[in-house]
Amino acid sequence: MAVATQSLEEICINSIRFLAVDAIEKSKSGHPGLPMGAAPMAFVLWDRFMRYNPKNPKWFNRDRFVLSAGHGCMLQYAMLYLTGYDSVTIEDIKQFRQWGSRTPGHPENFETAGVEVTTGPLGQGIANAVGLAMAEAHLAAKFNKPDAKIVDHYTYVILGDGCNMEGISGEAASLAGHYGLGKLIALYDDNHISIDGSTDVAFTEDVSKRFEAYGWHVLHVEDGNTDLAAISKAVEAAKAVTDKPTMIKVTTTIGYGAPNKQNTAGIHGAALGGDETALTRKNLGWEHEPFVIPQDALNHTRKAVERGAAYESEWNKTFTDYQAKYPAESAEFERFVSGKLPDGWNKVLPTYTPADSALPTRKHSENCLNKLAAVLPELIGGSADLTHSNLTELKGFGDFQKGQYQNRNIHFGVREHAMGAICNGMALHASGLIPYGATFLIFTDYMRAAIRLAALSQAGSIWVMTHDSIGQGEDGPTHQPIETLASLRAIPDLTVIRPADGNECSGAYTVAVEKSKAQASTLLAFTRQNVPNLAGTSIEGVKKGAYTVVDSQGTPDLILIGTGSELSLCVTAAEKLTAEGKKVRVVSMPSTNLFDAQDAAYKESVLPKAVTKRLSVEAASSFGWHKYIGTDGDTVSIDTFGASAPGGTCMEKFGFTVDNVLAKAKALLG
Amino acid sequence: MAVATQSLEEICINSIRFLAVDAIEKSKSGHPGLPMGAAPMAFVLWDRFMRYNPKNPKWFNRDRFVLSAGHGCMLQYAMLYLTGYDSVTIEDIKQFRQWGSRTPGHPENFETAGVEVTTGPLGQGIANAVGLAMAEAHLAAKFNKPDAKIVDHYTYVILGDGCNMEGISGEAASLAGHYGLGKLIALYDDNHISIDGSTDVAFTEDVSKRFEAYGWHVLHVEDGNTDLAAISKAVEAAKAVTDKPTMIKVTTTIGYGAPNKQNTAGIHGAALGGDETALTRKNLGWEHEPFVIPQDALNHTRKAVERGAAYESEWNKTFTDYQAKYPAESAEFERFVSGKLPDGWNKVLPTYTPADSALPTRKHSENCLNKLAAVLPELIGGSADLTHSNLTELKGFGDFQKGQYQNRNIHFGVREHAMGAICNGMALHASGLIPYGATFLIFTDYMRAAIRLAALSQAGSIWVMTHDSIGQGEDGPTHQPIETLASLRAIPDLTVIRPADGNECSGAYTVAVEKSKAQASTLLAFTRQNVPNLAGTSIEGVKKGAYTVVDSQGTPDLILIGTGSELSLCVTAAEKLTAEGKKVRVVSMPSTNLFDAQDAAYKESVLPKAVTKRLSVEAASSFGWHKYIGTDGDTVSIDTFGASAPGGTCMEKFGFTVDNVLAKAKALLG
Repeated sequence: MAVATQSLEEICINSIRFLAVDAIEKSKSGHPGLPMGAAPMAFVLWDRFMRYNPKNPKWFNRDRFVLSAGHGCMLQYAMLYLTGYDSVTIEDIKQFRQWGSRTPGHPENFETAGVEVTTGPLGQGIANAVGLAMAEAHLAAKFNKPDAKIVDHYTYVILGDGCNMEGISGEAASLAGHYGLGKLIALYDDNHISIDGSTDVAFTEDVSKRFEAYGWHVLHVEDGNTDLAAISKAVEAAKAVTDKPTMIKVTTTIGYGAPNKQNTAGIHGAALGGDETALTRKNLGWEHEPFVIPQDALNHTRKAVERGAAYESEWNKTFTDYQAKYPAESAEFERFVSGKLPDGWNKVLPTYTPADSALPTRKHSENCLNKLAAVLPELIGGSADLTHSNLTELKGFGDFQKGQYQNRNIHFGVREHAMGAICNGMALHASGLIPYGATFLIFTDYMRAAIRLAALSQAGSIWVMTHDSIGQGEDGPTHQPIETLASLRAIPDLTVIRPADGNECSGAYTVAVEKSKAQASTLLAFTRQNVPNLAGTSIEGVKKGAYTVVDSQGTPDLILIGTGSELSLCVTAAEKLTAEGKKVRVVSMPSTNLFDAQDAAYKESVLPKAVTKRLSVEAASSFGWHKYIGTDGDTVSIDTFGASAPGGTCMEKFGFTVDNVLAKAKALLG
Repeated sequence: MAVATQSLEEICINSIRFLAVDAIEKSKSGHPGLPMGAAPMAFVLWDRFMRYNPKNPKWFNRDRFVLSAGHGCMLQYAMLYLTGYDSVTIEDIKQFRQWGSRTPGHPENFETAGVEVTTGPLGQGIANAVGLAMAEAHLAAKFNKPDAKIVDHYTYVILGDGCNMEGISGEAASLAGHYGLGKLIALYDDNHISIDGSTDVAFTEDVSKRFEAYGWHVLHVEDGNTDLAAISKAVEAAKAVTDKPTMIKVTTTIGYGAPNKQNTAGIHGAALGGDETALTRKNLGWEHEPFVIPQDALNHTRKAVERGAAYESEWNKTFTDYQAKYPAESAEFERFVSGKLPDGWNKVLPTYTPADSALPTRKHSENCLNKLAAVLPELIGGSADLTHSNLTELKGFGDFQKGQYQNRNIHFGVREHAMGAICNGMALHASGLIPYGATFLIFTDYMRAAIRLAALSQAGSIWVMTHDSIGQGEDGPTHQPIETLASLRAIPDLTVIRPADGNECSGAYTVAVEKSKAQASTLLAFTRQNVPNLAGTSIEGVKKGAYTVVDSQGTPDLILIGTGSELSLCVTAAEKLTAEGKKVRVVSMPSTNLFDAQDAAYKESVLPKAVTKRLSVEAASSFGWHKYIGTDGDTVSIDTFGASAPGGTCMEKFGFTVDNVLAKAKALLG
């Protein structure tokens, strides 16, 4: 490793290493081990294989890169800086992990152009990458013509031991193998070290064999520290296999180059310290000051700018030809990428009157999804093996399968967590797709990390959750959500909607689709059981989160606040109370999140401060309701686990009856 | 399958099938497919291999059985009935899935004696089984002597395609292979059907090869429908391999015997219907009325009662010998199994005064864990690869590893979800173990389903969660909990405690240990950063959930409510306000759950209704706080995602400062 023998490529690779070392040393916080070990594979990918345009990070046909081992983000920031992205300057690198910087502690797509997805929680990135590859496969199958490939890129991902220990990565890898996603290439940074020390303490499985079992093409680079040729050869071999995803196990040394700390857990997540940094400089023959990159190295890596311009220019030509030959398809493609909705898309959503049949809201959801599927070709998704319970099939649009990537119904299998992250990956492909994922509401617990990341990373995923209360019935407490709605409403930037009937379901989808295009995620909660269509419900009402559906003459004595299947209990109770001379308002509150976002005047118009007798009615936890019912209010709610019995019995036994609403209302009225 | 040729064993197996078919037909709800297909393997296990005592379901040394595919619970109820458990009578089976029955829609250990763990959410059961097998291995290593094996049983589990698709099962299986749990035997009901239809739509991996990659001993029974000898032979082979867990793939036909519905998704989760039930009777030569089991079959299966009595009697003899030879060990064993705590155990927990150094509460947690480890040999657990961040090592107690099962530090790897379910399995071994699992608070999102099941299934697992706010700092919003505390507080029967200092940490562990022995689960949230020790904090205060730590003379003008690291802000702010002549009370509220359980008089004494000016201060979401601050109160809280910056900077920028508390307090005071 003496200076004299360093090739330009070695200098480039050491540039990556020392950008990481020095940034982390300056911030006294971060993870140098992965960037130091994975620098060679990153260099090979970005220098020899990946197609991207640093000056236009959003160029549509770029290869997607995901750093699933997100703690190694300095690797990615170093690559963005070295290859000439404007989003990461040397000043940004000096501000690593500081307030307001573009170089946060884990890669965040919404902070740093060139970062495709937000990683850090382990295993999410590889599952996002599966979603990105599925998006590419779908759009390629949909738009490409024999004489014009406008969608044609790879998805590369670097993942580590931690990612491979997480269950979500196994779920996603199993699906990727099943789908035969040949343009997904994963480089596994096999460094034998995790935070607790050697992987020998907890992780001794044969990862390569496991990926083979999933149906992947598996390769091994034995010396990922120095053997660039072997890395290149493996990536070439990966590209040559087009019907399977490839996993390249690249054996590396964590913290490569740090004489005392390499190959130890000590270098995983802490700055090297002054002494070890100096020794590492000496060991790797690096004589440059912190944050100084030799001009010849920068000249080399910045050739990416020229290459990128050429790639984009070439693609632009292809697209211009495509436009000429296929005007309808190209117009649709352009609309997709623009993120715009087609005019009048929402006119297909039905409205109802109380004369219409009672239906489960999941059935209304099915109807909305199918109406929307016809006018929104970008709608794509499916269920975690509950298609006919969730009612999420887009009829006539076929199953997305190997070689059938143009189809729009995805069978995720019983893999909720991967489903979530895959939907996020499809959304963050940024090609206009509206992905949705479905399961029982209770099983959001299995995919909560992905739901949170959808909200955080501004992925417009739509979550279609059915069987939304103890009304679920016989499956019992393991399947009955109690605290689930509260726990989801609390997630920042996630909009939870629990519609009460057909009109509100149409409203819920109106919001969800609009929010998806605005890069915001929505979770919809639907009933298993029938609910009547109510007077006064509306799409417009849903948009405001809460609104009055039954009102009294003059100031009400009492406000009943209902959501979902319990709104009808409120309406019936109000009729009885009104007949008894009480002044009662009924407020439908399908979305506390949307209501919270309204202005004070609107809130006051729905829930006047003067009316302190308020009763919320929701077949779920009371948690969170005091914000709306105040100190003098009450709830009809359930704060225990449910029970196995027919849904109607559960509802009755736990007090979700008109009689109980009346009793609690009268107690409040005094 | 004609009647004439049916052996007694076939009749027994058909008894299982028709108990399932008829119970589900009667309730018009349930999952007949699995019981019909898996009846032979269940019969072989319960009749030829498993050691249990129907008349004493809690006999310590019983083999543990877990139905990971919990939807097939009629299989388990049928076995409990046929083998003579008092917990499931034929009347109970007739009440399948009805209100108040002992035969709920999924197996629930707290409803039905003989059911070890609560399953239904897929993949949990196999991970619980890994925990059961780890508990057995640990106790065997700890208590057994060369001349007396008092702990010596197998853990059997039946899992399905759904379990094998879930990531949690992969996590748990990888760990089980790593630990070489030779007494764990999993039968994989390989029936090629899941709810969406053939597993061909989403699940085409080579499961056997995957388990081999995890280090399991893998076998295949090609005809699980009729080849009882092959099943027996496989179980024997499994038992013969003592250094690896065994996975037996048993290929079966879902809904075996139903001529039109077998081998289809239609029989997975719905009653057969009258016609198909009749045809199935004919097809399997079953001439008995619903719920009538031929006496000779019952005579055969009920031999389990006699066998069970003999097993227990034999074990009692072994234990009596053990008592005589090893009085100290046997006394400890008996205390373990009794679920009692040793006298004076809690005296080891330290108390503090404000003169003591500021420390992170995670450091206090480490101290408590280590003090407790010395007096509670039943304390066993670890972290999901964050041991030295969570500070959860029990020093001097070694690493639980293959062949080192007596040790008490478990490295779960980056497998939060499996960690949760494994802890639950260890707790539900019902041998007095107090299991704990640790990670960053934010990553409860990865293991939420297991945390919920701990609460539901009355497993006394303790969750040790550190880095409990944006004070976490540089890792940024992917690692900073915001809504996490609220989402956990909302789970029924889970006690969440966020202690403010050293005394409250001791209080938190006091509660957690006592609750664990009472089969209730506790989640502890600790800071990464230093907090001062405060005057007035106490162990006793924590037990009540909230208590006054600073009070005014007479009725306060204002109550400041703080938790965890923010309590000190309240105390300092109160000092300043008091100096300005305001009457201010400071309430520490480490646990809203514990406070909610207090009587009305105590609640009034802490938060008098008359004092409506209340300000909560917690570096987390405001969600849920209105219950305590009322309509006129306010919060110092954060309802957006966090940011990557040093922890102190995050706290300051998001308003967790004395100045901001003062400003909001003064605004309330008017």
